[in-house]
Amino acid sequence: MNSAAPSPAHNGKSKFVPGLEGVVAAQTRLSRVDGDAGELIIAGFPVEALAAQASFEEVVYLLWNDALPSRQQLEAFRTSLAARRALPAITLELLQAAAQQRLPAMDALRMAAGTLSLDDAGGDTPDEQRATGIGILARIPVLVAAYWRLRQGQAPVAPSAVLGEAANYLYMLFGAEPATERVRGLETYLNTVVDHGLNASTFTARVIMSTGSDLVSAVVGAIGALKGPLHGGAPGPALDMVFEIGDASRAEAYLRAKLDRHERLMGFGHRVYRVRDPRADVLAAAAERLYRRAGDMALYELAKSVEAAALALLAEYQPDRKLQTNVEYYTALLLHGLELPTDLFSPTFAISRTAGWLAHCFEQRQQSRIIRPQSEYVGPSGREWMALEQR
Amino acid sequence: MNSAAPSPAHNGKSKFVPGLEGVVAAQTRLSRVDGDAGELIIAGFPVEALAAQASFEEVVYLLWNDALPSRQQLEAFRTSLAARRALPAITLELLQAAAQQRLPAMDALRMAAGTLSLDDAGGDTPDEQRATGIGILARIPVLVAAYWRLRQGQAPVAPSAVLGEAANYLYMLFGAEPATERVRGLETYLNTVVDHGLNASTFTARVIMSTGSDLVSAVVGAIGALKGPLHGGAPGPALDMVFEIGDASRAEAYLRAKLDRHERLMGFGHRVYRVRDPRADVLAAAAERLYRRAGDMALYELAKSVEAAALALLAEYQPDRKLQTNVEYYTALLLHGLELPTDLFSPTFAISRTAGWLAHCFEQRQQSRIIRPQSEYVGPSGREWMALEQR
Repeated sequence: MNSAAPSPAHNGKSKFVPGLEGVVAAQTRLSRVDGDAGELIIAGFPVEALAAQASFEEVVYLLWNDALPSRQQLEAFRTSLAARRALPAITLELLQAAAQQRLPAMDALRMAAGTLSLDDAGGDTPDEQRATGIGILARIPVLVAAYWRLRQGQAPVAPSAVLGEAANYLYMLFGAEPATERVRGLETYLNTVVDHGLNASTFTARVIMSTGSDLVSAVVGAIGALKGPLHGGAPGPALDMVFEIGDASRAEAYLRAKLDRHERLMGFGHRVYRVRDPRADVLAAAAERLYRRAGDMALYELAKSVEAAALALLAEYQPDRKLQTNVEYYTALLLHGLELPTDLFSPTFAISRTAGWLAHCFEQRQQSRIIRPQSEYVGPSGREWMALEQR
Repeated sequence: MNSAAPSPAHNGKSKFVPGLEGVVAAQTRLSRVDGDAGELIIAGFPVEALAAQASFEEVVYLLWNDALPSRQQLEAFRTSLAARRALPAITLELLQAAAQQRLPAMDALRMAAGTLSLDDAGGDTPDEQRATGIGILARIPVLVAAYWRLRQGQAPVAPSAVLGEAANYLYMLFGAEPATERVRGLETYLNTVVDHGLNASTFTARVIMSTGSDLVSAVVGAIGALKGPLHGGAPGPALDMVFEIGDASRAEAYLRAKLDRHERLMGFGHRVYRVRDPRADVLAAAAERLYRRAGDMALYELAKSVEAAALALLAEYQPDRKLQTNVEYYTALLLHGLELPTDLFSPTFAISRTAGWLAHCFEQRQQSRIIRPQSEYVGPSGREWMALEQR
């Protein structure tokens, strides 16, 4: 059809960086991931210091204000979140329509989150932005819980006006006020995954924000990125593997067969960490506490055995890659211990990470500079138009 | 509160690149922007060759298939688009709710576009992805037109099952089949702005797609980025300026006062182009044809006079910056000639650019590699936990 001369189109300035690997696209005070040392710092604190001690609201306050709150500040923050849990009426109808189509929970969440502009007061001042952020953060769990119940054919449970974020989420899912240790278990999870450097969803939020766009747009974009299977953080498959193995005596044979087929072991290895993911230990400890309280350690013990067998085999099969247990493995165990179904794992991750996305958006907003890389043209040039009749 | 040692946290590998300026984040066969030469190539063709000759469907087909369609291929493509214009019922209700709140059109579009997953068959094969893309592209104009009418208190006009994309958009806006020259004017605009390298919205779409996410998520994220005022492509302010000037005799004084106040002249200057934006000439010619046909050249002549005055003054005030007329200036004139209100300028841009976003998504999908840059931590470290009672 067209005369098409190949055109490498180097502009003589830059070289394509696949995946932007190693490129530093933002400066942040929010978190530091040291993959070689196996360290995660959240706003100055090692993740271990926050995970099991802080409430989720304290961690969010810390990320948004670069300081832990006083008692009064914390109370005001909790109250402002609890006051913003009501959904626009059309949002519930939309979730109902999504449930009728049996849409995946992440699609329903992305769709419904987009409607949170409907009753947002808007505005560009830091205070107005903060108010919008509170309206988003407060309602992501409401959307997730309402959708899950609708998809089960149950009526949504109206959010509590007094419970904290974690307790209210469990309350809306199960219709009863949760026991303290379950709230603590969930808060530990939420604190642990709230922020993690410039992962793809956080980066998406920052790119959208960098154009001067709004927080709802940024969070909706981030949810869209988070749902992709390459993003990481979806712990369902790791748990599926443990269930499939079923008994510690079968672990080695099962895993060896998988490795012989060159299949990946879910829950092991991480793009950034070259040593053990610091979040794995925090979550393992939280899971252990939860299962011990519940009085049934069987699944926890099985998971420990499977982990040991997997690490031994990975050292044997792929000694150079130094694959270690990642955050997903014990996330799965912990969330399962909280009786969350696998379908809710990614949306629950989104509930936490929304706080991190918003923190990055506030940070990005302070720089009025668009994130706008280049592309390299590798297509033809010099094609000549030919009328339809001649083709 | 916390002992906080500053921590520059250089990893010794990379340096922060503000705005990712000059970094090449993707290779593409879709478009090449040569800012120094003032050239824009769309899939091998100079934009000038496509703008006024091709139908919008031909340009989209070209981007999606890297070849112009035969008559049969074009007919099949047009038919497949026309067959996918119906909206989910809840989507119209959502647009109604947005209209009641008088939401900006871009917010309503972003919100409603998110619901296009509701009746999407999904699937990951290239054919399935293409079908999803057709469902998105076919309905973005339907969303824009329906929302605009709802916000005027008018009932939406059901889409035509036979008209082409451009004609159907005008038909849905105004409720009557448009004259040929108006369709041609709109197609010239849509063809001209369909793709433009790795702008921030296209980059957003590619980042979301790179996680393995879906096309609706990518397009919704891109709409969110496009609405930001730093994105560019919003031509309203350029036209406002022409109207404010009102008469060619006032142009110089008006513009000189603006420049003396160090204000930016909207419609002039571009991040990438150092010479005249090649799209400006294409759109100026289309606008001239349109106004001439309509028999009233007054606004066109005024715009030409304002442009001449602005270029002369910019050369005087900012000789080093070589500011030239950009795409927004004549976009505004052309779209105004099509009787589109300023509020519809950005959504109409989105109608065209959706085809480019989807083309980039198809291209990105072929690489199963996540786009995941790094951040540099510039916050404190070594903070120590302090219980709430002690703060």
